[in-house]
Amino acid sequence: MGLFTKDIKTMDDLFVHQLQDIYYAEKQLVKALPKMADKATDPQLKQGFLTHLEETHVHVQRLEQVFKMHGAEVKAVNCPAIDGIIKEADETAGEVDDKAVLDAALINAAQAAEHYEIVRYGSLIAWARQLGRNDCAAVLQKTLDEEKVTDKKLTSLAEGKINMRAAS
Amino acid sequence: MGLFTKDIKTMDDLFVHQLQDIYYAEKQLVKALPKMADKATDPQLKQGFLTHLEETHVHVQRLEQVFKMHGAEVKAVNCPAIDGIIKEADETAGEVDDKAVLDAALINAAQAAEHYEIVRYGSLIAWARQLGRNDCAAVLQKTLDEEKVTDKKLTSLAEGKINMRAAS
Repeated sequence: MGLFTKDIKTMDDLFVHQLQDIYYAEKQLVKALPKMADKATDPQLKQGFLTHLEETHVHVQRLEQVFKMHGAEVKAVNCPAIDGIIKEADETAGEVDDKAVLDAALINAAQAAEHYEIVRYGSLIAWARQLGRNDCAAVLQKTLDEEKVTDKKLTSLAEGKINMRAAS
Repeated sequence: MGLFTKDIKTMDDLFVHQLQDIYYAEKQLVKALPKMADKATDPQLKQGFLTHLEETHVHVQRLEQVFKMHGAEVKAVNCPAIDGIIKEADETAGEVDDKAVLDAALINAAQAAEHYEIVRYGSLIAWARQLGRNDCAAVLQKTLDEEKVTDKKLTSLAEGKINMRAAS
């Protein structure tokens, strides 16, 4: 997308732009999740990050599939939102001097990324349907469902164990 | 918070750090929402942004109240996540060359901000309860409820009207 031109002229352009944005975001998460798994102390949390990393690889592949189904070039555009979310996760984690508290901070950081994705996939699915691309919407829906499951698992883990340990 | 020291030693420190983070985020949204209202074309969307601006002023006041209840200094720390979300909203909006498509992009941007807040307030409430601060949790819950209502309103508006217009 050009910096000084208005390249998004139609809903279809917006859909493709958003695909490029979330494609970048998923690829950044592929890099960030192993680091988060390394930092996590609780074995269940560590495993949770690694499981979600495997899912995220699949999410990247699904996006490539949707680009192709829609006849668009597989391409990423910068996504300052996910960069900001990851930067903040790193900064906060770097300031925590207690392993149990760090686990609580890591869950919170991961949930910020999950919710970012939940919003973007939600819009992409609605836009795909509006554009008559129910086939693309169906592929994107699989990922959205997995992001929502991951978010709920993180909440359960935080409220069932991690927060209690962090506060003790 | 120091750049080279690990200042978050307890769950209480993490709670206060997160309060400072969301305090910054709410104040940035007070600046961003009038610009989003200016850019919106649909009168209902424009009014929605202005109504949420009024609510956001109250959210800032509630955070100041929670800082005081908890005996912590009212203070903001930089929040790269909300900066990234707002930057991305500005960049994308700047590339859209159609008013109806811009409305769809603006809703998507606003929902990214809402979900960021939903995650952070969710964690703050869970942490406050863990710390025995049900009084703080109750104040924060009021804001979380409003953020969720706003998010749902935006989805209804997008799916009921804005997306259809943008695709036509």
